[in-house]
Amino acid sequence: MQKTQDGFLITFEGIDGSGKSTQIKLLKDFLQSRGFEVLSLREPGGVPVAEQIRAILLENKNEINPIAELLLFSASRAALVQAVIIPALEQRQVVVLDRFYDSTVAYQGYGRGISLERIHQINEIASFGLLPNLTFYFDLQPEDALLRKFSEKSLPLSFKDNEIPLDRMERAGLEFFQRVRTGYKELVQTAPERFYEIDALCSISEIHQKVVERIKTHDFFHAKTA
Amino acid sequence: MQKTQDGFLITFEGIDGSGKSTQIKLLKDFLQSRGFEVLSLREPGGVPVAEQIRAILLENKNEINPIAELLLFSASRAALVQAVIIPALEQRQVVVLDRFYDSTVAYQGYGRGISLERIHQINEIASFGLLPNLTFYFDLQPEDALLRKFSEKSLPLSFKDNEIPLDRMERAGLEFFQRVRTGYKELVQTAPERFYEIDALCSISEIHQKVVERIKTHDFFHAKTA
Repeated sequence: MQKTQDGFLITFEGIDGSGKSTQIKLLKDFLQSRGFEVLSLREPGGVPVAEQIRAILLENKNEINPIAELLLFSASRAALVQAVIIPALEQRQVVVLDRFYDSTVAYQGYGRGISLERIHQINEIASFGLLPNLTFYFDLQPEDALLRKFSEKSLPLSFKDNEIPLDRMERAGLEFFQRVRTGYKELVQTAPERFYEIDALCSISEIHQKVVERIKTHDFFHAKTA
Repeated sequence: MQKTQDGFLITFEGIDGSGKSTQIKLLKDFLQSRGFEVLSLREPGGVPVAEQIRAILLENKNEINPIAELLLFSASRAALVQAVIIPALEQRQVVVLDRFYDSTVAYQGYGRGISLERIHQINEIASFGLLPNLTFYFDLQPEDALLRKFSEKSLPLSFKDNEIPLDRMERAGLEFFQRVRTGYKELVQTAPERFYEIDALCSISEIHQKVVERIKTHDFFHAKTA
């Protein structure tokens, strides 16, 4: 693995509903206000080929087998890394990604059950060996993500945690996301210097403050603002 | 690697212009006339997801980097193998493929220069460990493929081999196909029991006869016709 030290690569990880996109927007605004050039991107997507791959993934959601899905996500990443991310880092930009290869480990590895060895082989190929400088992991229990989803739909929230009215599919979905969360937790353990775990139930401003405080511990921030 | 012994998997390999599709058609007719159920497929393609991937590969031909290309080909293969090839073999069909993972080794490995170790890692993942029972390799010098192409276009054929009038792009293309051919030749060396090499300059009927003779040395053929 290599780090492209010219720029700074920040990734945001966590299950859907954990508040990544809100925080990415806040961080981008903050960094830009301090004079940084910031490029924020989502996976899969970001370049024409990757957007086309994203469309295939969405269109065939229920028919793509896990291996084909893994390879499509990886193809999309390879296109984005080489065409956009590496050039931006070489131009000393801050690149902020909504999901990167830790998502592959958590979702395709822990979630879908593909062997972690294979995930790592393909991840390293697809990311051209690029490693984030810093990864924010927003930890959220899948049940809480579901509660957030229900509350967005204005569904009644009068039931208790273990009484969430789920059908069979939703229950299976919950188990999937529990495996994904386990994956994230183990990733954080294996690379504590790169990951910064934040409780996603904190308020938006509390989380933004934690993110900014962590950013300030990195040299790149002071190199610019000094 | 595992072989699915219920059916029989035959692959045809060689550079474009080596006569694969003509021979696949002849072999399919022959096997069907002997009572076999034959499924012939081309890569990439064969299932909706794979056809969509094929469209991306064709549309972005000059913009996709070699790694993204490799991963897209592999995603297409993974979809085809799991949804179509493995079920057909389990139903004791003969599956005939125009290109399979030897193409990946020859084109993406030898041709584009991706490390063979990575190619093999991804190949094994994408093919679910499935190995062809028999592979016909049609050997053709790239110069001869080019001559065939010119002759199809009714271009003059009065020049000698080393005087083919090529521009810079065509010359680069020729060097690419020379590396691909080297790759095929080395593959044949490493698995002589699986590969059967045929000189693509032989006549169509001569080649068909060689193909049929080789097919007849395999037990599956006699199991059916006995």
